[in-house]
Amino acid sequence: MSDVIDKMTSKMADWLSGEGRDSDIVISSRARLARNLLNFPFVDRSTEDQQKTILSAVLSAAENTEFLKNALYFDISSVNELNRQFLVERRLISTDFAEGENPRGLLVTADEQIGVMINEEDHLRIQVIHSGFSLEKAWYDVRQLDQELSSYLDYAFSERFGYLTACPTNVGTGVRFSVFVHLPALTFTKEIEGVFSEMIPAGIAVRGFYGEGSQIIGNFFQISNQYTLGWTEQGILDRLIPLINCFITKERSAREHVRNDQRVTIEDKVFRAQGILTKAKVLSFIEFLDLLSALRFGIDLDMLPKIDGRIFNELMVLTQPAHIQKTEGKVLNELERDILRATLVRGKLNLN
Amino acid sequence: MSDVIDKMTSKMADWLSGEGRDSDIVISSRARLARNLLNFPFVDRSTEDQQKTILSAVLSAAENTEFLKNALYFDISSVNELNRQFLVERRLISTDFAEGENPRGLLVTADEQIGVMINEEDHLRIQVIHSGFSLEKAWYDVRQLDQELSSYLDYAFSERFGYLTACPTNVGTGVRFSVFVHLPALTFTKEIEGVFSEMIPAGIAVRGFYGEGSQIIGNFFQISNQYTLGWTEQGILDRLIPLINCFITKERSAREHVRNDQRVTIEDKVFRAQGILTKAKVLSFIEFLDLLSALRFGIDLDMLPKIDGRIFNELMVLTQPAHIQKTEGKVLNELERDILRATLVRGKLNLN
Repeated sequence: MSDVIDKMTSKMADWLSGEGRDSDIVISSRARLARNLLNFPFVDRSTEDQQKTILSAVLSAAENTEFLKNALYFDISSVNELNRQFLVERRLISTDFAEGENPRGLLVTADEQIGVMINEEDHLRIQVIHSGFSLEKAWYDVRQLDQELSSYLDYAFSERFGYLTACPTNVGTGVRFSVFVHLPALTFTKEIEGVFSEMIPAGIAVRGFYGEGSQIIGNFFQISNQYTLGWTEQGILDRLIPLINCFITKERSAREHVRNDQRVTIEDKVFRAQGILTKAKVLSFIEFLDLLSALRFGIDLDMLPKIDGRIFNELMVLTQPAHIQKTEGKVLNELERDILRATLVRGKLNLN
Repeated sequence: MSDVIDKMTSKMADWLSGEGRDSDIVISSRARLARNLLNFPFVDRSTEDQQKTILSAVLSAAENTEFLKNALYFDISSVNELNRQFLVERRLISTDFAEGENPRGLLVTADEQIGVMINEEDHLRIQVIHSGFSLEKAWYDVRQLDQELSSYLDYAFSERFGYLTACPTNVGTGVRFSVFVHLPALTFTKEIEGVFSEMIPAGIAVRGFYGEGSQIIGNFFQISNQYTLGWTEQGILDRLIPLINCFITKERSAREHVRNDQRVTIEDKVFRAQGILTKAKVLSFIEFLDLLSALRFGIDLDMLPKIDGRIFNELMVLTQPAHIQKTEGKVLNELERDILRATLVRGKLNLN
């Protein structure tokens, strides 16, 4: 299993391609469904034996689907700590799932665009991620997979509430759509807080780099729907997409504004970032993301020559602590990681 | 007069040459004497007419001396604000002298190594500055000039106290020796506070970039004797020089220590400074001095190729706010100065 993870280290997920609509702002789009099996208690109330039964039921079902028949499977209990952290950084599992003790597993396709966590908060957490602003495509795929799985699995479903989930915020459709966005101009002009507070009553949640409860770094945000009950999936999507379009428009207009009115301040920020990325010998992950954000901003404003979006997106993954250690093939302390990160970045960005 | 100052802008003082003993640590050495004329009240108690009389007496005396017969003279009352600030940045006059209202003047040699402020706190403040660790040479010169002047002027002198001065801290010899030093390693290792507190009981005063009451920036310090009474000038010098040698030794040993034990952290600091100086579009004077200090440190540790010490020393002068404005030939706001400073630095350091 460790071998499989080692191989994943050198290959990147397809959703990091930097392609798709508005991919200078929307890095990726994700649809995820929460599902539970009929006749089994939710994960936090079920026994280990019940969870093992759930695991094998899901695995058997998955084998019969077009989407997952060739998927990789990880029995998380037998994955070591560094590799679990690696899967978190890959955005394939949640931190809670990595730290859990119960029988649980991950199914993931080789392109890493489709994944299923089994026995996380719900029996199944099915996710599809695509590059760019492509929520409809993610929704289409996740729905297909869900339909395939539902031929082999009996889901807990109530006529009144819809899909039943461990946490009430997921009851109903069980769907969460989210986009991972880069909003440097709105952050720079400080408009972002105003925009976010406008959006919250409209049912939008804004989260940090690693999703729920995580820190905001490098001007990267996760924006998702807050409510899952009382709307159809399409209804949620139809409300969410215009709101995200609104973020995109506001970000573009803020970019235009700073390009014209604060050019020297932005240039200073952008070129300093370039200078530091070129010269630093020690780089923390957080500082790196801040600098990468500035560099990306400079490219988006045509102050620097274009760099392939894939390089940026992959670097955000590769520079994470577990990835640095997997690449080096050993456990490292923070300073060792920060030194290797600085070297890696210089090489990948071809800054010399 | 403004013409003369305009010419000074493009020519630098000889004491910035970066030559002399230990000039990687001791940038310059200064000896200054406080003198007052017999039969005149101290400046803060004298009338405008008395001060004018003092002024002409000193100017007549100066014309007869070898040292000052070709000196430039500035009637400070008729020097505009920017030019007065320029003379402060040149270290030829004090801030108080620049801001004063009374009849006062500055005599200065073309190489800017010898200057006399007339009607500052004392009737005469005679200073000599030389490059490197050269207090004896500065003392020799200032004593010669003082002897020449004393043939034409009657100094206020008491057999019991020595030379009488407006402030008791100068009574006695009226001498202050000071060195302008760069101590990046002691600052980096945080040993500096310990070293300073050791030195204070020995009669050493440590001041910031612009001397008394000024901020410490860029790891540059002014170290001087605190006491002037009860010792001969030579006695003060004989005590002070070993103490400064002790600073130099401690700084060298700290440099050795960090070069061996904290190489990557220092390299990171040094190369980041290089990266920022190469790329920044906006640079405040304080940030510039911090970065220059790091660059200089990197050169002293052989991490970067040598740069002529004169370039460093001159840049510290040329990048000051009034110098930026004099060079540009007009009054500028802070952002305008910061932009020009960044451009100037890139050009002078040949960083591209």
